[in-house]
Amino acid sequence: MKKEIIALYPGSFDPLTNGHLDIITRASRLFPTLIVAITKNLNKNHLFSLEDRIDMLKESVSDMHNVKVVSFSGLLANYFDEMKANVLIRGLRAVSDFEYEFQMALMNRNLNANFETVFLMPDQDYTFLSSSMIKEIAMLGGDTKDFVPACVEKKLKQIKKQNQ
Amino acid sequence: MKKEIIALYPGSFDPLTNGHLDIITRASRLFPTLIVAITKNLNKNHLFSLEDRIDMLKESVSDMHNVKVVSFSGLLANYFDEMKANVLIRGLRAVSDFEYEFQMALMNRNLNANFETVFLMPDQDYTFLSSSMIKEIAMLGGDTKDFVPACVEKKLKQIKKQNQ
Amino acid sequence: MKKEIIALYPGSFDPLTNGHLDIITRASRLFPTLIVAITKNLNKNHLFSLEDRIDMLKESVSDMHNVKVVSFSGLLANYFDEMKANVLIRGLRAVSDFEYEFQMALMNRNLNANFETVFLMPDQDYTFLSSSMIKEIAMLGGDTKDFVPACVEKKLKQIKKQNQ
Amino acid sequence: MKKEIIALYPGSFDPLTNGHLDIITRASRLFPTLIVAITKNLNKNHLFSLEDRIDMLKESVSDMHNVKVVSFSGLLANYFDEMKANVLIRGLRAVSDFEYEFQMALMNRNLNANFETVFLMPDQDYTFLSSSMIKEIAMLGGDTKDFVPACVEKKLKQIKKQNQ
Amino acid sequence: MKKEIIALYPGSFDPLTNGHLDIITRASRLFPTLIVAITKNLNKNHLFSLEDRIDMLKESVSDMHNVKVVSFSGLLANYFDEMKANVLIRGLRAVSDFEYEFQMALMNRNLNANFETVFLMPDQDYTFLSSSMIKEIAMLGGDTKDFVPACVEKKLKQIKKQNQ
Amino acid sequence: MKKEIIALYPGSFDPLTNGHLDIITRASRLFPTLIVAITKNLNKNHLFSLEDRIDMLKESVSDMHNVKVVSFSGLLANYFDEMKANVLIRGLRAVSDFEYEFQMALMNRNLNANFETVFLMPDQDYTFLSSSMIKEIAMLGGDTKDFVPACVEKKLKQIKKQNQ
Repeated sequence: MKKEIIALYPGSFDPLTNGHLDIITRASRLFPTLIVAITKNLNKNHLFSLEDRIDMLKESVSDMHNVKVVSFSGLLANYFDEMKANVLIRGLRAVSDFEYEFQMALMNRNLNANFETVFLMPDQDYTFLSSSMIKEIAMLGGDTKDFVPACVEKKLKQIKKQNQ
Repeated sequence: MKKEIIALYPGSFDPLTNGHLDIITRASRLFPTLIVAITKNLNKNHLFSLEDRIDMLKESVSDMHNVKVVSFSGLLANYFDEMKANVLIRGLRAVSDFEYEFQMALMNRNLNANFETVFLMPDQDYTFLSSSMIKEIAMLGGDTKDFVPACVEKKLKQIKKQNQ
Repeated sequence: MKKEIIALYPGSFDPLTNGHLDIITRASRLFPTLIVAITKNLNKNHLFSLEDRIDMLKESVSDMHNVKVVSFSGLLANYFDEMKANVLIRGLRAVSDFEYEFQMALMNRNLNANFETVFLMPDQDYTFLSSSMIKEIAMLGGDTKDFVPACVEKKLKQIKKQNQ
Repeated sequence: MKKEIIALYPGSFDPLTNGHLDIITRASRLFPTLIVAITKNLNKNHLFSLEDRIDMLKESVSDMHNVKVVSFSGLLANYFDEMKANVLIRGLRAVSDFEYEFQMALMNRNLNANFETVFLMPDQDYTFLSSSMIKEIAMLGGDTKDFVPACVEKKLKQIKKQNQ
Repeated sequence: MKKEIIALYPGSFDPLTNGHLDIITRASRLFPTLIVAITKNLNKNHLFSLEDRIDMLKESVSDMHNVKVVSFSGLLANYFDEMKANVLIRGLRAVSDFEYEFQMALMNRNLNANFETVFLMPDQDYTFLSSSMIKEIAMLGGDTKDFVPACVEKKLKQIKKQNQ
Repeated sequence: MKKEIIALYPGSFDPLTNGHLDIITRASRLFPTLIVAITKNLNKNHLFSLEDRIDMLKESVSDMHNVKVVSFSGLLANYFDEMKANVLIRGLRAVSDFEYEFQMALMNRNLNANFETVFLMPDQDYTFLSSSMIKEIAMLGGDTKDFVPACVEKKLKQIKKQNQ
């Protein structure tokens, strides 16, 4: 194996949680290059703008020198080739994750024979975390500082204030 | 990331199936060095001797130049450090796999903080394969040539003959 | 253990089913005080108004003397403390319930260390029941009398008539 | 058993996939008459009109002589009796399918004691297919020709063009 | 479809439960001929002899005129062809059943392309029943009359007496 | 509710883990009386004698004044009545636990209509723990001090020495 492996970690990161950050840290230790790719996906109802999501991610991974943050639209199976990626990174927390991720991984392999997915497991302190739960807690006035990076917590509070 | 990643793929391989071989192939493309480690585990009732299991594996991976075949006894979490491994490889086929593997991965992380497990998905043609099914089919006189490497099929037929 | 345990059973009850009522009955036998707490949750698209949901619940539990019906908004983990509750009641019907409930219970424990969740199992005649199925059946003109209390069935028929 | 069994395979088929077609083929070999029943369900946001869904299904099953294509609205448990059906056909791909289908089958048996559901398993090449994934891939410009009948692929491309 | 469908329902039936009998009844209504095939499987530790298992099954299905009781050894995929069967019957009670049955069904399809498996759901009163639980309860002196046919209950009591 | 609730927590506790102890602590806070009932079950191959299992449990719960440790044989559904218990306590860690426990709880309700099971969730630090894993780790020379009470750890080391 001479080629340098490029790993791709896609997601909407709306917003980035400590669980995502944990997966990014683990993947960055295993592979020479890690590209974190934020889905643009204009139709979906995001709480954070693409710009905010990029900024929060860039700030949070600034000390990991082999991690790049990008955004993309279109089919993941095509973007994977475009980026000359060799492996897709996905986090697994629960059985329900597993089934959906498995189905996606099989579909991607059918769309692109080069596609390889590896699943990583976040720290057990983060197995219950999801972006949608974080948003719900923040909008109900709950404290999210144990669940997201500081820059995300600050933004969540700003949005909560604007909505009042 | 300067260090060269060493991946460890443990199992009893009693016997090696095409599903295992598929995982080995995928892992060998992702990581610079892959050590396939056969558990000695004297108590368990294996169909194949350790020697046979080593031979069949060595023959089957002979063309993958970054793959080594070894055997080990004792605690996996200790052996992982002994081999200076950075990542453990596990295949995932089904929800039941997932739960057991998750539990093992969490336990291993508790025993050894360096422990990292990555899960790979075999080709969908192999999702139904397991060593125990292969043994049952072979012992009932079924044809296993689509499910195991040729050297394993041959050995299975020999054992079947001896048992008659 | 000297203190009197207060149990909290939260839900949207849109509408109350016989499955919910079965869980309420079981919990009311196990704990000195049971508070059934209806979520206000203004954003969600409910079929029944909060007033109707409160009325149907109050009518259905009128003969259980240690059961109180209330409504609440905001974060459950805070409301739990406000009510001096000691234990949260949740019903479990299926694996999919289990995963979601587990995730919620872990999150709630992280938000509030006092949080304790107990899971009860409804009668096996009710394992297939859900409020959303009831609504769908009623709106398609199906008979719901075996699945909900009489007062709920009556209200469902009224709404069905108004929608025609 | 003298009576001729009538099997009913309901769905929204928005659009028909090769997985659906595989289930239809299998069911048509097992039962004398198979009725494929497309749900009208006006509320749901379908990509294809009912007419298009009927046309694509009729074209795709034209060579199966015991298969009829119809559409229906209202409660499935009633329509089942109306069509004098004896058995409902459902495809199972994954654990998450299973739980939902089980719940539906129990509910239908409670609504109509004659109700019998049989579950068939599609070819393993189709276990990852779903109509919603197909639509997402097509709308992102991906190639769906391995996943749907030719007439569906053509229609998907037309819709994609109109949306641009 | 001119040919008469032959359905095969294999199992060890050690012993027959009301859940098995329910599946047999349902399958016998759907298919012209149903063969209930008891696995000989000499290695396994059965509580009941093959003769007893055959007798109890024959007595329990005596009023279903299209049901035959046989025993077999060897590979199910071969026996299926030998009996000119068109469809295999399996009961599904829970997610864990589902995964194992799915794996078996895929394996059987790989061993024999004609293989078709249909899954039936027992009455919800029987979803918790298994032969191993019945044996455990009977051997601990529990009452099994609600869970097995009368002839099985009688035999269980005899065995319990002999073991004392 | 005037009667004092008696809770029963059965298990083989071979050996007691920190996960069991966590469930005992939680249950003892919720119910006036908690009986921890160790199954004698002579057939099963236990690592620890019944006496050792009783001693280790008694030592570990000595500071919980409403907890009693007993042993029992025979049918749990009968023992439940004998002890005038009102509720059975079970811990849930994973989906696989859930299915088995659900089946047992339904069976027990069928054997004894008074039977009520409540499920508690251990601390997330213990979700991966099981007695069988603990035994395996200890016998392979691993360190179990984070997973079991001190008295259990000591006993495990003694047994390990004796086996060498």
